[in-house]
Amino acid sequence: MNTKHALSVTFDDVLAARDRISPHINHPPQLRLPALCDIFGIDVVLQCENLQQTGSFKFRGASNAMELLLPDQRSRGVITYSSGNHAQAIARAAQIRNTAATVVMPDNAPAVKVAGVRRAGATIVQYNPATEDRESICNQIARDTGKTVIPPYNHPHVIAGQGTAALELIENAGSFDAILAPCGGGGLLSGTAISTKSLLPHCKVYGVEPSQADDAARSFATRTLCSVHHPQTIADGARTPSLGEHTFPVVMELVDGFYTVTEPQIAHAMRMLIEMCKLVVEPTGAVSLAGLIAQRAHWQGKRVGIVVSGGNVDLAKLPEYFALADQYRET
Amino acid sequence: MNTKHALSVTFDDVLAARDRISPHINHPPQLRLPALCDIFGIDVVLQCENLQQTGSFKFRGASNAMELLLPDQRSRGVITYSSGNHAQAIARAAQIRNTAATVVMPDNAPAVKVAGVRRAGATIVQYNPATEDRESICNQIARDTGKTVIPPYNHPHVIAGQGTAALELIENAGSFDAILAPCGGGGLLSGTAISTKSLLPHCKVYGVEPSQADDAARSFATRTLCSVHHPQTIADGARTPSLGEHTFPVVMELVDGFYTVTEPQIAHAMRMLIEMCKLVVEPTGAVSLAGLIAQRAHWQGKRVGIVVSGGNVDLAKLPEYFALADQYRET
Repeated sequence: MNTKHALSVTFDDVLAARDRISPHINHPPQLRLPALCDIFGIDVVLQCENLQQTGSFKFRGASNAMELLLPDQRSRGVITYSSGNHAQAIARAAQIRNTAATVVMPDNAPAVKVAGVRRAGATIVQYNPATEDRESICNQIARDTGKTVIPPYNHPHVIAGQGTAALELIENAGSFDAILAPCGGGGLLSGTAISTKSLLPHCKVYGVEPSQADDAARSFATRTLCSVHHPQTIADGARTPSLGEHTFPVVMELVDGFYTVTEPQIAHAMRMLIEMCKLVVEPTGAVSLAGLIAQRAHWQGKRVGIVVSGGNVDLAKLPEYFALADQYRET
Repeated sequence: MNTKHALSVTFDDVLAARDRISPHINHPPQLRLPALCDIFGIDVVLQCENLQQTGSFKFRGASNAMELLLPDQRSRGVITYSSGNHAQAIARAAQIRNTAATVVMPDNAPAVKVAGVRRAGATIVQYNPATEDRESICNQIARDTGKTVIPPYNHPHVIAGQGTAALELIENAGSFDAILAPCGGGGLLSGTAISTKSLLPHCKVYGVEPSQADDAARSFATRTLCSVHHPQTIADGARTPSLGEHTFPVVMELVDGFYTVTEPQIAHAMRMLIEMCKLVVEPTGAVSLAGLIAQRAHWQGKRVGIVVSGGNVDLAKLPEYFALADQYRET
C-alpha cells in the first residue's frame, strides 16, 4: 500500500506493554531443535507460548489489558466472552490482581477449560451458543454491573500485549527471514506483525489458518472483511468467525500473506511437536508449523520463527488427533 | 568422609566434555514456571533434558564418549547394550559421525525405542533377557569384531558428559540450595554431583529413586553396593540393577542423600509436568520432581534445581499413567 493508515496499535505500545507485563508473565524459551531443522533444511526457531502462564500467549494480552485498567475499573471487575484460552488468561490475570472476573462461556465448553477458569476463581455465566449471542450477553452484564469488557482479540491493549511474544523471539533469537503465526481473530498475528516489521523490516510475516476456517486469508485476498460460521476444525483457537476492526487494518498493512493448512497437516505438525520436540501443544499451537511444512520448499535454507501459540489440549483426544495425522500425505 | 578418594571423573573432565560436545548437542532451557513455584512455595527450576537430542540427557555422555574415540576405534565402530535412551543416544551420536553402531537390545524392548535406534541407522542384536546376559553378548561381539564398548553409565567419559547438564543449569540459572536428579546406574547423578559440588559447594545434591528400585539408596545407606532384580517400576530408566564401580564412589563421596518415591508419586509428578508445564516427559523424567514434592516441606522457601531427564514416553500409555496418578494422595 502506498498510503500508511493510522493503526490502533504501534510498536511503542508493544514496548510499553512489555515493560508493564514483564514481571508478571513467563518468558518462554526460543527453542531451536537441530533434528527438526535437519528434516526440513530450514533453520526453525520455536517461540514456545505453550509454556506461557495459563498455557497460551493469551496471558500476555490479558495481562496488559488488566494493567491498564483504572483503579475504579479494577474495583468493579472485568468481564469477557471466550470458551478457551482467553477466558483462562483473563481469569488468572484478574486473580493475581485481586480483581473479580466474569466469563461468558458456552454451555458446551470443554470441561477442562471450564475447570481452568473456575480454578482461577472467575464467575462463569453459561449460554446456549445455538440460540444466544455471547457478545450481547457480555455487553448486557457489563452495562448492568459496570464491569469492563476485555474482548479476546479486537482491542488495542490486547493486541499490544500479544506483540510482546514476537518481540521476545527476535530480541533473544536474532534475525529471521520469516515469522509465522496462527490466525484466529488476528490478535496474535497483528501483534507479531507490528513487532516484526519494526525490528526486522525485511522479515516476512505470514498468517496461517486452517483451510476450513480461512476467513482471514479470504479477507486478505479480497481486501474485504470475510467471515466463517461454525468452522469445523480441530484448531479451536482459529474458529473465530472473522478479523476485527482493530486487527483487520493491521493485517492488511503489515502481513505479507497467508498460508492455509488441512486438518491432517495440522495433526501431523502437532504430532511432530509432541513426539519429536517433546512439547505439549494444542492443535492451534501446531498451525504455524503446519504452514511452514506445507511451504517448506519455499523456505529452504532460510531462518524461520514459528509461534507455538498454546498447549491446552485435551490429552484424551490424542489418539483421535494422531489418527488424523496418519491421513497426512507429503505434498 | 574425612579422606578424599581419587574419583574416576573430575570437574575438569566435565569442563573438557562441555567444550567437546557443545557444538553437537542441544542446550535445553532452564525453565522456571511461576505457577509451579507457587504451588509448593519452592523456587523450582527445571533443566529440560527431555528437549535434548534423542529426547534425553544420554546424548551428552554418548557424544563425549564418541568424541574421545581414537581414529581407529571410530573406524571399527562402537557397540553398547541398552533397551532405551542410551541406545538411541549412541545410535544417533554414531550416525552423525559416520561411525557404525551396534546395540544389544532385549527382544521385548518397546517398539518405539527399537524404531528410534533403527531410524538412526544402528544395527540391532536381539537377545532373550530371561535366558541371556546382555553384557556378555556385547563383550563377545566386541572381542570378535574389535568394536569399542560404550557402556550406558559406568564409564568416565559417559559420566563426564552427563555432568554437563548440571553445569549448564548452574551457569545459566545461578545458585541453588539443592539439585535433585533421578538415579538409575548413577551416571547422571554422579555427573550432577561433580559439577554441583565444584561450582556450588554449599548446594545439596540428592538422588531420587523409585522405592521399588531403591538399590542406590540402600547402597548409600549401607555403604555397600546393593542391587535389585527386575524391579517393577514405570520409571524404566531407573530399572538398572545397581550402581557401578565408577559411579558408586562418586555417589558415596559427593551426594548428600537419597529420596525414594512411590509409583503414584512418580505418575502424579509426570502428569503435573505434562498437563501444567506442557512438557512431554517419560516416567523417569518426573522422578526428581516427585522427590521434591515428597520432601516439599523441607525445601519450603528454597531454590531447587530439578533435572528432567528425558521425554521418550509411549503416549498410548498416558491413560494408564494418569490412572496411577489418580492413586496419589498428598502426604
